[in-house]
Amino acid sequence: MMQQIQENALIARLSALLPRSPEQVNGLHESDAEIVRFPGNEARLIAVTTDGIVEEIESGLYSDPYLVGWMTVMANLSDLAAVGAEPIGLLIAQTLPHGISDADLTSLQTGIRDACLQAGTTILGGDTNFSDHLQTTGTAIGLLSDTPPLMRVRCEPGEALYCSGPLGVGNAYAALRVLCRNDQDSFPYRPSARLREGNSLRSCASTCMDTSDGLFATLDQLGRLNGCGFSLDKPPEDIIAPEALQVAVATGLAPWMLLAAPHGEFELVFTVPSDRISILEQTAERTGWTPLRIGNTTREPGIAIQNRLALSPDELARIRNYPMNTAADRLAFPSFLAGLEARRDIDQTMTFH
Amino acid sequence: MMQQIQENALIARLSALLPRSPEQVNGLHESDAEIVRFPGNEARLIAVTTDGIVEEIESGLYSDPYLVGWMTVMANLSDLAAVGAEPIGLLIAQTLPHGISDADLTSLQTGIRDACLQAGTTILGGDTNFSDHLQTTGTAIGLLSDTPPLMRVRCEPGEALYCSGPLGVGNAYAALRVLCRNDQDSFPYRPSARLREGNSLRSCASTCMDTSDGLFATLDQLGRLNGCGFSLDKPPEDIIAPEALQVAVATGLAPWMLLAAPHGEFELVFTVPSDRISILEQTAERTGWTPLRIGNTTREPGIAIQNRLALSPDELARIRNYPMNTAADRLAFPSFLAGLEARRDIDQTMTFH
Repeated sequence: MMQQIQENALIARLSALLPRSPEQVNGLHESDAEIVRFPGNEARLIAVTTDGIVEEIESGLYSDPYLVGWMTVMANLSDLAAVGAEPIGLLIAQTLPHGISDADLTSLQTGIRDACLQAGTTILGGDTNFSDHLQTTGTAIGLLSDTPPLMRVRCEPGEALYCSGPLGVGNAYAALRVLCRNDQDSFPYRPSARLREGNSLRSCASTCMDTSDGLFATLDQLGRLNGCGFSLDKPPEDIIAPEALQVAVATGLAPWMLLAAPHGEFELVFTVPSDRISILEQTAERTGWTPLRIGNTTREPGIAIQNRLALSPDELARIRNYPMNTAADRLAFPSFLAGLEARRDIDQTMTFH
Repeated sequence: MMQQIQENALIARLSALLPRSPEQVNGLHESDAEIVRFPGNEARLIAVTTDGIVEEIESGLYSDPYLVGWMTVMANLSDLAAVGAEPIGLLIAQTLPHGISDADLTSLQTGIRDACLQAGTTILGGDTNFSDHLQTTGTAIGLLSDTPPLMRVRCEPGEALYCSGPLGVGNAYAALRVLCRNDQDSFPYRPSARLREGNSLRSCASTCMDTSDGLFATLDQLGRLNGCGFSLDKPPEDIIAPEALQVAVATGLAPWMLLAAPHGEFELVFTVPSDRISILEQTAERTGWTPLRIGNTTREPGIAIQNRLALSPDELARIRNYPMNTAADRLAFPSFLAGLEARRDIDQTMTFH
C-alpha cells in the first residue's frame, strides 16, 4: 500500500541498506521529523529533519533568492512543527553559483534571516560550495519535552479532521508560475511553520503531518499509514484561502485542484478523537489560533469531498506519482486532473467552478 | 588576519546577516562543529555540523558513488571527532541524477552504510531530490558530556603539536586523479573519522581541528585563530603515510606538497601544553592509539619545516586561496607550489625529493 507511491518506494529502497538507531522513536514514514531519545535523558527527545530546495529551483518554481532562503528555513521548521518540537536552531548548506551577485547573495541570506526571526530561531552554522547552480539544504534541530511526540500514526475511523489554516496558496503560487509563466513572484507565497500550533497539538491530536506536498498527498499518506480514509465535509471553496481562490478563477482551475497538486502551503493537518476535541479547542484558544475543522476520518479508504468527488487510493496514487515537475507540457497535469473530475460525473451546477 | 583567507571572508559575509543563538558555545570559525547548550540541561552539549559533497564530484575528484557515500558520512563525523563529540546519528540529503542506475544507487548507499558501521553510528533520516547531477549533504548530530568541548582556540606558543596519524593520503589521491587522470579509484582513499581519538583528547588538548583541507590549511587556520605559528620538527617524509609518499615519487611532487594541497585526510591536528603531555600519552595508550608528535607551536606566525622551508601567513594565504578545483590547467597548482619552494633556496641534497 505504501509502496504504491513512488516516493515511498524510493525512500524504502534508499533506507533498506542503511543502519537505523535503536534510539529512534519513529519508524520509516511515521513522522515528519526524525525523533530520537536523548542519550542519558530518556524523558527528552530530539527531533531532526533535513530538506533540500533543489527541484523547486531547477523547475523554475522558485527564482527569487529571498524565497529560496525563506523556504530553506520554513520547510524544515514545518517538519519540527508537525512533531510538536521546539527549534534549537538550523544548519544551512549552500551551493552557490560561481559569480553570484552581491544583491542575490544578500537576498538569499535575508530570506533565511527573516524566516528565522519570524519563527524565533537561529542559524547555528553551515557549509558553502560553489557550482553552476543554486541549491540549498537546511537541517533543523528541535527539542521535545516529555509528553509523547506528534506522529503520523495512529488515528481511528470516526475522528475529527482539522487543518491549522486555509489551504491552496502553494498550488496557487505554482499555478501562476507554471501556467501563466509569472516570474514576478507577485503572489504572496511566504509559508510560516506552524510551531505554536504543533506544540499545542501534542495534548490532543492522534496524528499530524504538514501539507508540504499539498492536502491530498498529506491525507493520502496518512490514510495509507493508518488504514483509513477521509471525508471532507466542506466544499473546497471553504477550505481554500481567498487569495488562492482568486487564482483558481483567474487560471480556470477547479478549486479542488489547488488541494490536489503537489506544491503545498505548510499548514498542519491533524486528527483528533472526539473525546479530545474540547482539549483542542481550549488549548488553541489559550495559544491564540483557530483550528479549521474540515471533515472526518473514515473506514473507507481514499478521499471524499462531500458527495461530489471521491478519489480511491489508486487514483490518489496516480495523482501523487504524476511527474509534474519534469513534464515538458505544463498543461498536462491540470488536464489529467480535469479528466479525473469529468469521469466522476460531478454535478456541475454546484460550486466546483 | 582571518579575512585574508577567501573562505573565511565568505563565511563571515554569509553569517553577518544571520541571527545567532545565545546558547551557542563557539564563535564563528572557532570549532569544527557547532556546539550548543542543551536546553534545560546545561551540563550537556549538542554538537552539530553539515557538509556537502559538491565540488569534489563536479571537479571529477570523486566519481565512485561508494566513495561519495562514504565521504558524506565521514566528513561530517570528522567534525564531531574534532570537538570530541559522540555521534547520535546522521541525516543525508541526496540529489540524485535522473535515471541513476540501480548499481550506482546501491553503491552510494553501501558507502553510507559501511562508513556508519565502521564509526558505530546510524542514519536517522534524509531527503531525496532528482536533478541532472549527483550531490549529497550530510548532517551529523553528536553529544558532549560535561567536560569542555575541544575547540580550535586557545593554544599558546611552546606547546606540543601532534596529529592523530600519518598525513598526505588525501592529496596523494587527488594528485593521481588530477595529474594522472586516474579514474580507477585504485588508490585506497577511505578516511576514517577519528572519533575515539577526539574523545580522548578532551582531557589534554588545548586546540583541535581536522585536516579536511590538508595540514597547511589546518595549521594556518589554527595560527590565525590563536595568533601563533608552527614549527615541524620532522621532515615531511616522516609525517606522510608510506603509500602517499610512493605517489609523490611516482608523480614527481615534492613530499611537502602533499601537506600543502587542499584535499585532506581527515586526521586530527591538536596542541597539548607540556604539563598535559603525560595525560595524552596515558589516555592514548589506554584507548589504543598512538599520537604522532610533529612539532611545536611558535610565537613566529606561519609554518616552518625544520630549517628547510618557512611559509609566512601571506604565502599560506596564497596557497589556500589558490582556486585549485576551478583551474583549467591541472599542472598550475603544483607549479605554483614548486615556485614557492624554489624561491626558498632549499638545500636540494636533503630529503625533500
